[in-house]
Amino acid sequence: MGIVIKKYGGTSVGSPERIKKVAQQIIKAKEKEPEIVVVVSAMGDTTDDLIELAHEITQLPDEREMDMLLSTGEQISCALLSLALISMGCPAVSLTAQQVEILTTDTYTKAKIQKVSTKRILKELKANKVVVVAGFQGITEDQNITTLGRGGSDTTAVALAAALEADICEIFTDVDGVYTADPRIVKDARKLELIAYEEMLELASAGAKVLQSRSVEMAKKFGVKIHVRSSFNNLPGTIVCEEVADMEDILVSGVTSNLDEAKITVLDVSDKPGMAARIFTELSEKNINVDMIVQSASENATNDISFTVTKSDLLRAVQIMNVLIKEIGARGIISDDNVAKVSIVGVGMRSHCGIASKMFSVLASKGINIDMISTSEIKISCIIKRNYAEEAVRALHDAFDLAKKDNRSEFRV
Amino acid sequence: MGIVIKKYGGTSVGSPERIKKVAQQIIKAKEKEPEIVVVVSAMGDTTDDLIELAHEITQLPDEREMDMLLSTGEQISCALLSLALISMGCPAVSLTAQQVEILTTDTYTKAKIQKVSTKRILKELKANKVVVVAGFQGITEDQNITTLGRGGSDTTAVALAAALEADICEIFTDVDGVYTADPRIVKDARKLELIAYEEMLELASAGAKVLQSRSVEMAKKFGVKIHVRSSFNNLPGTIVCEEVADMEDILVSGVTSNLDEAKITVLDVSDKPGMAARIFTELSEKNINVDMIVQSASENATNDISFTVTKSDLLRAVQIMNVLIKEIGARGIISDDNVAKVSIVGVGMRSHCGIASKMFSVLASKGINIDMISTSEIKISCIIKRNYAEEAVRALHDAFDLAKKDNRSEFRV
Repeated sequence: MGIVIKKYGGTSVGSPERIKKVAQQIIKAKEKEPEIVVVVSAMGDTTDDLIELAHEITQLPDEREMDMLLSTGEQISCALLSLALISMGCPAVSLTAQQVEILTTDTYTKAKIQKVSTKRILKELKANKVVVVAGFQGITEDQNITTLGRGGSDTTAVALAAALEADICEIFTDVDGVYTADPRIVKDARKLELIAYEEMLELASAGAKVLQSRSVEMAKKFGVKIHVRSSFNNLPGTIVCEEVADMEDILVSGVTSNLDEAKITVLDVSDKPGMAARIFTELSEKNINVDMIVQSASENATNDISFTVTKSDLLRAVQIMNVLIKEIGARGIISDDNVAKVSIVGVGMRSHCGIASKMFSVLASKGINIDMISTSEIKISCIIKRNYAEEAVRALHDAFDLAKKDNRSEFRV
Repeated sequence: MGIVIKKYGGTSVGSPERIKKVAQQIIKAKEKEPEIVVVVSAMGDTTDDLIELAHEITQLPDEREMDMLLSTGEQISCALLSLALISMGCPAVSLTAQQVEILTTDTYTKAKIQKVSTKRILKELKANKVVVVAGFQGITEDQNITTLGRGGSDTTAVALAAALEADICEIFTDVDGVYTADPRIVKDARKLELIAYEEMLELASAGAKVLQSRSVEMAKKFGVKIHVRSSFNNLPGTIVCEEVADMEDILVSGVTSNLDEAKITVLDVSDKPGMAARIFTELSEKNINVDMIVQSASENATNDISFTVTKSDLLRAVQIMNVLIKEIGARGIISDDNVAKVSIVGVGMRSHCGIASKMFSVLASKGINIDMISTSEIKISCIIKRNYAEEAVRALHDAFDLAKKDNRSEFRV
C-alpha cells in the first residue's frame, strides 16, 4: 500500500471527543496503511465564529487579513489531532501550509494552488509519523497566508494526493457518500457506489455540498481517486473516478438543488457585439464567479441579460453593475435572491435526448414556473422560485426513478 | 521620531470593541510617530482556552504541538487589529513570527529568540503601513513554530525594538505602570516614574507580573528603553531604563509577592562534592527553572537541599527527583505548594546594610515564620506560608515607607 490521504471535515473534528475518535480510526488504519497523510478542516463552527469576530470589527474586512485570521482554524484542529495521536502513542506531526509549502496565487479568500512541495511530508513519513496537514490554507511566494475558499480542505487533500501520488484520497464527512438526492429532502434517495468526475463536478456546481468543485476538477486532472465516506461508521462510501463504460447506461445519476444563488437581470442591453463580454469581464476581474448566463434572443435593438451569482457576492455584483449600466447605456438591473437552482446530472445524458423535455414536463405538472434554463452535456439546471425547490427535487427524483438501482432501463435505446 | 514599538497585552485587545479602541489610539499616535510596529498578545483568555482544549485531549500534551496550537491566539489578535486599522483608513499589515522571521531555539513552550530579521518589517514601514506583529511566537530554522513562554509578547516587543533600533518600546497594559507594591494588596502603593533594569528584573522574578523577566534582560542587554503604561488612559507610566545615580538614594523600590512557586526539599543528601550539581543539572536538562536554592550547612554527613520551582513544573520536578534520589542515595523528598515568596527590591540596597535584618524583624513582629531566604545584590526574598503573603507585603511596604516619595532619607548614610 502506498501513501493514503485522509481528509476529515469540520464535523468529524468538531470536539475533543471526536478528535480522539478520529485519532483511533487513524491508528487502526495505520496497521494496513503505513503512510498516512491527514488533512483537517477547522473544528465545527470555528470558521464562522472567526468571520463573526471580524464582522464585529468591520463589515468589509480586508481579504489578506481575513485569510490570516481564518487560517488559524485549521492550525488549531491539526495541532489537536496531532496531540491526540501522540498521546495515544502514535508518532505524529502537524504542519501548516507554510511548513508543507503549499504555494498559491495571491487571490486572497479564494486562492488557487500552484505548487505543492513534498519534501517535508516525505521526511516526516520516513520518520514513521502520521502527518497532519492544515487544510484550506496556502502561502504565497511572499509568505503571505491565503485560504482556498469554502470547502478548500478538499482541494488541499486532492492536491496532496496528486503531489504525493497517493493511492487514494479518502474524504471523511458527515454523510455516507454521494446520494441520488439530498436524503433530508428525498426519503428514498440512494447512495451511489461510483460516480464519474464529470458528474460529481456538475453535482458540486449544482449545489451538492459533498465536495468542493475545484477539488474534483483537480482530481480529474491528476487522476486522483476519491473515496467519499462517513467518519462515523466503517461502511464503504462513493468512489469518484474516471468514467467507465457502464456508467453511461445510467441516464440521470442525481438531482440536486442550490439555494445559494441569486439572479441579476440587466435590462435593455443594446444588441451589439461586445456587450456581454464587457459585463462578464468586469465581474470576473472583481473576482465574482458567475454561474448561469441567459441572454434572451430578441428582434429589438436591445436584449435582457440574466445571470446568477452566489448570494454572498450579490451586493458587490449589484454595485458593480449599477456603475456599468451607465457606461454601456442599459436601462437598469433587477436582482432576485428568492430563487433556487434545481439540476439533474448524469453522464448518460450525453447520448440520449428527451431528458430535458421530461424535466420541464415534470416541473410543469407541479405548476412550477421555470425562470432560467441552462444545460451542459451532462447537466440540466433550472432556476425556479425558492419555495418550490424541495418539491421539484422530490418530483424529479421520482420521475427519473432514481431510488431504483436499475433505473438505467427506462431510457435505454 | 524614529521607530516606535507598541505592545498591547491580552486585556487591551480582549474584545472587538477594545481592539477598535487600540486601533484609534494607534492612528492618533501615528500623527507624531510615523513608523509604528505593534506587538499583540492573544485576546483575553484565548491562550487559557486553547490550553484547556488540549487538556481535554491529553494531560501531557506534546510541546511542539502545543506551540502549534497556542501560536494561533496571537495570529488571531494581530489579524483583527490589522483589520480594524485598515477599516479606519490606516494602511496596516499583520505578520506572524514566521513572516517576520523571528528565529528561536527549538525549546518548545519556552523558546529563546536568537535572531530577528528586519527586512519584511522595514519594507512594510516604508510602504507607510502600521506593522502588527504576533507576539509570543517564533520559528525554528526548520520552520517549526515555537512560543516564548508566558508573557513572551513582551520579549517579542523588546527584541523587535532592539533589532529595529527603535526609539522606545511602549508596553501597554491594564495597569498604570510599575508600583511600589501590588495596589490590590497595598492601598497606598505608589507608581514609580523610573525604575532600573536590575530592579525591574528582580521585581519580575519576584512575582510582579508587569513584564516578563526575559524581556527586561534583553532590554538591559540592548539598552532598549521600556515605557510601561496603561492602554486605558493617556497618563505617563513607568520608564524602565539604565540605572541613574539618583536611583541609589532609594533603598527599597518595591515589595512584591509570588504565589506561583512551590518548594521541594531533598532529604539527607550525602555531603560530598557534585551532589548539588547532579540535582540541578538534571532539572535544567529537563527544562525546569529553579528559582531559590538553599542548602543547610550541617555537621553531619548529609544535608537537606531545598529549592523552589514554578507550580506548573512541580509535578514533573517531583517525578524527576523521585528517580534521582535513588541514584544519589538521598532519603526522600518533601514538596509543599502552600508557600509564597515575598521580596523587597532596590538598587540602593547595594550600598546599605541593615535592610535584610529590618525585613526579617518586620516579618517576625507579625508572627510570620521564614522558611527559606535568598538574597541578591538588590533583592531579598523570603519563602513564607502562603496565607501570610498579603499581610507580609503590607507590613513591609509600610515599614520601608514606600508610599512616600522621599522615603530615600531614612537609610541614608
